[in-house]
Amino acid sequence: MEKDYFASRATVRAYDPERHISDELLDSILERAMRAPTTGNMQLYTVIVTRDPERKAALTPLHFNQPASTGADVILTICADFNRFTRWCRLSDADAGYDNLLSFLSAMTDAVIVAQQIVTIAETEGLGTCYLGTVTYNADKISELLNLPELVVPVACLSLGYPAGPTVQCERLPLNAVVHREQYRPDSDEDVIELFRTKEEYAPNKQFVAENGKANLAQVFTDIRYPRSLNESVSKMLVQHLRDKGFLS
Amino acid sequence: MEKDYFASRATVRAYDPERHISDELLDSILERAMRAPTTGNMQLYTVIVTRDPERKAALTPLHFNQPASTGADVILTICADFNRFTRWCRLSDADAGYDNLLSFLSAMTDAVIVAQQIVTIAETEGLGTCYLGTVTYNADKISELLNLPELVVPVACLSLGYPAGPTVQCERLPLNAVVHREQYRPDSDEDVIELFRTKEEYAPNKQFVAENGKANLAQVFTDIRYPRSLNESVSKMLVQHLRDKGFLS
Repeated sequence: MEKDYFASRATVRAYDPERHISDELLDSILERAMRAPTTGNMQLYTVIVTRDPERKAALTPLHFNQPASTGADVILTICADFNRFTRWCRLSDADAGYDNLLSFLSAMTDAVIVAQQIVTIAETEGLGTCYLGTVTYNADKISELLNLPELVVPVACLSLGYPAGPTVQCERLPLNAVVHREQYRPDSDEDVIELFRTKEEYAPNKQFVAENGKANLAQVFTDIRYPRSLNESVSKMLVQHLRDKGFLS
Repeated sequence: MEKDYFASRATVRAYDPERHISDELLDSILERAMRAPTTGNMQLYTVIVTRDPERKAALTPLHFNQPASTGADVILTICADFNRFTRWCRLSDADAGYDNLLSFLSAMTDAVIVAQQIVTIAETEGLGTCYLGTVTYNADKISELLNLPELVVPVACLSLGYPAGPTVQCERLPLNAVVHREQYRPDSDEDVIELFRTKEEYAPNKQFVAENGKANLAQVFTDIRYPRSLNESVSKMLVQHLRDKGFLS
């Protein structure tokens, strides 16, 4: 691993179609990732590996065919999973009370921790990775495609492949935007504007604003990328999906 | 970083009281962790650093004074945060529709990703880390202590310090328990029992069972560590807390 790996890493959305991840490397990544922390050592997650071309072709439309999905060598769907543990409890005459919000959030935490561990290990092995946030938007349909049983919900998705070219970092907020000391810092309106200033002045963001005919960067997010109506309809589906999977009993 | 760091890492709950993490090292860890992936580059999290002894003394009872908290050199409370982004939108005449479940889950994902990135960077710097799962159990009281505003909820907590001694790995499930190929694998009851066999035969687990006077390991989890009644009362509090913080409008 390069000394400055963490400081220089970036998401990779375009993969070399000629290079494939060997099964040995993939299993080695997953095996090491299993050493990531997990709630009470319960390992409340399942990683579903998609690498068969036909299965990939069925899955990628549920990620809106974004190039990071269609061009991926491997797609990993990481699920919050209290099913395996609950079945083991039931088979042991133990009263498994994991059909509730706390249990879902614990399993989701485990799933995201292991997802990020996979990202780091994969990247240190020379692979590129990208989270497909679309996993949440079509959680119900992805559950159906992957045959997920009760108490299993997809919460993170990763595309993996060898990078097609050099990676480029994007901008970030200044450190003090996201790090507060001892208590949550009550910023003034002026402070908030200042925290986002370099982001607004970042050239590619200015281009986004212009291309989309918006007044400012925030409106690109609220009107185009993450609009209220979509957030609200997806939220409604998610509540129903959590209920269907038995997490809101 | 050692070649086999990922395969050999383990959680550290006991810290050397004589060694302190410098502010420079802590900031360097946080600065690098900010390069972790984040939803739409929105950085929907805030890390609250607790290192003042008085503030620590106020916080650790909310973690049930577990030794990993009272003995920590630094405690980091990592919050799902849509407040900063929403304020920026409002100041930009943009309609921020992030008061819903999807937005909470996106922010929680960002928070857990950055938490795990902090863990990895801290460990590669020679520190020991431990997730304090108790953050969820007292989310409402921790929110109050840290002055969290609307759309900010604590979702992960880390204790950090130099390890007091050598670290020991605990057992894990076999790889095929948590990795499924192409679809969720419908295991039989016998399969499930087999997946948990090495866990049940692991000597420290057998000791847990004996010490607690239980019939088997699963009952240690369901009757003592994560009992139904506690899960259900915490879940009720969490729903109310998410509502209070404006995430279930």
